[in-house]
Amino acid sequence: MAEIREFRSIVGVFPCEVQWGECDPAGIIFYPTYFRWMDAATWAFMDSVGYGPRRMRAERLAMPLVFADCQFLFPAGHGDRCEVRSRIARFGGKSFVVAHEMIRSDGTALAKGSETRVWGRYADGPGTPMKGEPVPNAVKALFRAP
Amino acid sequence: MAEIREFRSIVGVFPCEVQWGECDPAGIIFYPTYFRWMDAATWAFMDSVGYGPRRMRAERLAMPLVFADCQFLFPAGHGDRCEVRSRIARFGGKSFVVAHEMIRSDGTALAKGSETRVWGRYADGPGTPMKGEPVPNAVKALFRAP
Amino acid sequence: MAEIREFRSIVGVFPCEVQWGECDPAGIIFYPTYFRWMDAATWAFMDSVGYGPRRMRAERLAMPLVFADCQFLFPAGHGDRCEVRSRIARFGGKSFVVAHEMIRSDGTALAKGSETRVWGRYADGPGTPMKGEPVPNAVKALFRAP
Amino acid sequence: MAEIREFRSIVGVFPCEVQWGECDPAGIIFYPTYFRWMDAATWAFMDSVGYGPRRMRAERLAMPLVFADCQFLFPAGHGDRCEVRSRIARFGGKSFVVAHEMIRSDGTALAKGSETRVWGRYADGPGTPMKGEPVPNAVKALFRAP
Repeated sequence: MAEIREFRSIVGVFPCEVQWGECDPAGIIFYPTYFRWMDAATWAFMDSVGYGPRRMRAERLAMPLVFADCQFLFPAGHGDRCEVRSRIARFGGKSFVVAHEMIRSDGTALAKGSETRVWGRYADGPGTPMKGEPVPNAVKALFRAP
Repeated sequence: MAEIREFRSIVGVFPCEVQWGECDPAGIIFYPTYFRWMDAATWAFMDSVGYGPRRMRAERLAMPLVFADCQFLFPAGHGDRCEVRSRIARFGGKSFVVAHEMIRSDGTALAKGSETRVWGRYADGPGTPMKGEPVPNAVKALFRAP
Repeated sequence: MAEIREFRSIVGVFPCEVQWGECDPAGIIFYPTYFRWMDAATWAFMDSVGYGPRRMRAERLAMPLVFADCQFLFPAGHGDRCEVRSRIARFGGKSFVVAHEMIRSDGTALAKGSETRVWGRYADGPGTPMKGEPVPNAVKALFRAP
Repeated sequence: MAEIREFRSIVGVFPCEVQWGECDPAGIIFYPTYFRWMDAATWAFMDSVGYGPRRMRAERLAMPLVFADCQFLFPAGHGDRCEVRSRIARFGGKSFVVAHEMIRSDGTALAKGSETRVWGRYADGPGTPMKGEPVPNAVKALFRAP
């Protein structure tokens, strides 16, 4: 899934570091941590094009998930400095795919994953019912690589 | 804080088990996990007297925290079966203190902590402004030991 | 991935409940929670056939991940009682695939996912280097449906 | 506890940001998140004086907790940029107290807490038994404000 590259996307960069409490008794990162990172990276990617938490909330926008996956390539350990590199792999009708690469500061690829999300709007703010909407062309344009 | 016993309270029991991902590279429980357990135990305690998630939400009730603490007595490890025993230590005007004991299935006390919470109501559902209110006497009565 | 059914497996059942702190401002489960559940469900599944945390540790066994995915079918909310139903979808040489279904107590399918794991052994306990090994036939037999 | 100031300490700064998945259905930070931040801030504080994860591990050093508390002063929300300011409040014989303040980028104090930790050493690396040791004077000196 992460290999799809239908859209020529800008790349978002989300810095992160493997914390003690994100590692398990094997001394390496507990794998759901990568999904927490991907979620945070997507929010940061949206923020970077002008759709920050405040605006998302004010416009009652949501981006719930329909699918997520991750390949684990190399074990990350406590103190590893990393970044998540995110790009839009595909824009569908009411959905989009974000591809993420987790890279250690020395260039080692730790993991690669993807999230398939719906572009949606709450009836009346978070917690109320949400409906998918076509991704606006103006939004797609913001992610297009120059 | 956890030692206060101003109120003769019933005791709630919340069963839990130390998961692999809740342990750190030292092979023992990562301490914020106890606070996650305490929060879940308080919600279960409320549920046990008729204030479950659905009702809390329908009546726009909230119980935000003003303080929490925990003493760590004995290290818990992966697979340990435990229970959180919760009681109301004190009802204040608009606040209340929940005292929690984390006990392993063999009776070993792992940790003891407390949460001080406000009894509050959202203006219009979660996410909207919240105001503290006096804890209703009817609610206090539900927690009184017979 | 979750659709693979090459192995006729017994089914493990891991009960869980959506906690307040596992939900996000949209009022529904934060998606990495499902991966935490899947990990815990796999450990419980192993335990159910005699490979509990203590034995895994004593025999220096590990089961690191190479891949995980999840489809999100229906939003789970605070207080939802669920179970994770796990089965072995496939035994490879040194790896195996666990397929998980997250089902709400009323039968609603919330999510379905899979984990691909290596059967491995630490050189000298958790935290030391780990090497993959062929899954023993005796282990495979433990998961075979009668 | 957080008010103790027996030691004239340097101040560590750990930047962080409230993520979507760290907030609960009330739209504010889920309180155990602050303890996760405090733990990460203490590791970063140690790192800043030369005791990074690698060295801690190589010298078999540990710093398990005996107590933690936190006062919640103002609700943090998704996207809030913050920093944790950490100082040593006290060095005991084999223990030490780290006081933390969680400050939003506009200067608002969100929370203040403390951790009481033991200075310990594993018999043989993480996962093996751990014993407390007197905090070395050389370590104390590293944290002393000039």
